[in-house]
Amino acid sequence: MNEYSPQVLSKMHPKDFRQIVREGKWKGITNEACENYVQANLAIVPKAYAFEFLLFCQRNPQPTSLLDVTEPGSIEPFKVAPLADLRTDLPKYRVYRNGDLIDEPADVKKYWDNDLVAFLIGCSWSFDWALKAAKVQFRMVGAYNSNIQCRPAGVFRGQMVVSARLFESSHDAMRAIQISSRHPECHGVPVHIGNPDTIGIKDLSKPDVFKLVNGIPQKANEIVMFWGCGVTPQTVAMEAKIPLMITHAPGHMFVTDRLVEEMAIL
Amino acid sequence: MNEYSPQVLSKMHPKDFRQIVREGKWKGITNEACENYVQANLAIVPKAYAFEFLLFCQRNPQPTSLLDVTEPGSIEPFKVAPLADLRTDLPKYRVYRNGDLIDEPADVKKYWDNDLVAFLIGCSWSFDWALKAAKVQFRMVGAYNSNIQCRPAGVFRGQMVVSARLFESSHDAMRAIQISSRHPECHGVPVHIGNPDTIGIKDLSKPDVFKLVNGIPQKANEIVMFWGCGVTPQTVAMEAKIPLMITHAPGHMFVTDRLVEEMAIL
Repeated sequence: MNEYSPQVLSKMHPKDFRQIVREGKWKGITNEACENYVQANLAIVPKAYAFEFLLFCQRNPQPTSLLDVTEPGSIEPFKVAPLADLRTDLPKYRVYRNGDLIDEPADVKKYWDNDLVAFLIGCSWSFDWALKAAKVQFRMVGAYNSNIQCRPAGVFRGQMVVSARLFESSHDAMRAIQISSRHPECHGVPVHIGNPDTIGIKDLSKPDVFKLVNGIPQKANEIVMFWGCGVTPQTVAMEAKIPLMITHAPGHMFVTDRLVEEMAIL
Repeated sequence: MNEYSPQVLSKMHPKDFRQIVREGKWKGITNEACENYVQANLAIVPKAYAFEFLLFCQRNPQPTSLLDVTEPGSIEPFKVAPLADLRTDLPKYRVYRNGDLIDEPADVKKYWDNDLVAFLIGCSWSFDWALKAAKVQFRMVGAYNSNIQCRPAGVFRGQMVVSARLFESSHDAMRAIQISSRHPECHGVPVHIGNPDTIGIKDLSKPDVFKLVNGIPQKANEIVMFWGCGVTPQTVAMEAKIPLMITHAPGHMFVTDRLVEEMAIL
């Protein structure tokens, strides 16, 4: 799995990257893969839950910015990655039954059936490309369980998971607000700026969901902003204990054929 | 029905306007009502079709910009107009069975049951307020059947209905593109600029769906632009001949509590 350097991975076309994933030649996380292409969170649910899940996404566009929804039973996200195979083209999956993690396979062929609907949800790694392109300086800290209530839909209800970024310069913070506003497909504008405690986050140095910067505390002059995180709908579906859900494993995203800038508004 | 002048109607709060509609005191079209508030197309379908209809909307955001989706059986669009009653608060409805128009009632209480899901879809009258606020000069001509294929979802498939506006000044046309881009809740950016024939419209002076300017042809110096029209999902659902669909009657929209500017992005 180390046969591809970050330089090689970052310059790959998504079609080529998905091919090496499909062939089992890349099993790692995707943060270095396919610079400037939109990456996606995956959530697959039975058709019986698809309406309520889609409604949850529609009602909570910041954590669950929808990139594509497949036809029931289809393995192909034809809007953002024609000919891709959602059963094999992510490096690692998670399979949940009734809310319990039962497997973490490299493909999900054996779990697939014609009753499943796949949702691809924007991942903020994609909009980080846009921030970097604009030379915005920031530190990504991690993701947290906030106390912001999502708007419920049917069985799906719960609190928003948010990702945090730290900015030393007000100018960079303003640019990040402007740039992320252009990218509703990747969570759009921040949901919160300032005191983490206001949204139920007690200690910024201890992310609940994942951390990229290990335990580095906020500096006195740093502005913190929070964006909706695509982990939210998975968390909510786990808590609803639906009979089956398949997701990507954390960090092992689906890489689409769409450029970040291609999907920007304005 | 003429007891309210355009001046009185335009200054009413949506709650008050919906109340006079509910009491049968206003039965006309809503184009003069509640200046600067978002108006909505209505489409109500049985729950069995709700997932595919929601998916159609999600896949075709320009004609079908979703403002709100009710819980199955609920009469209240709690996101955009809490306490409103979708059975009574529009001046006129249309009821279709298997694609055939069977009734044009002033309320739909007798057709209501707990199996129905209501969709409120942005109406470009709302973004016309934003154009007027920016002093953009234009002529609204009408709506047409185009040859632009919508992305299908289940039984819902067909061509996009578009609305046309004429601009004498390039500056005003550019401003209209910028301003409508800020309003994805009301169809967003145009789907076409220039030659109507390219999208299958043979004669601009003969709108298929409705016309506001009677037979006035395009002037040589006028730029024409087309936006997705919220009539599209109704047309598509009629053609799918679903067992029951309830819509607003043309021009008799639902007026929400949300200001146009409140819903703008950027």
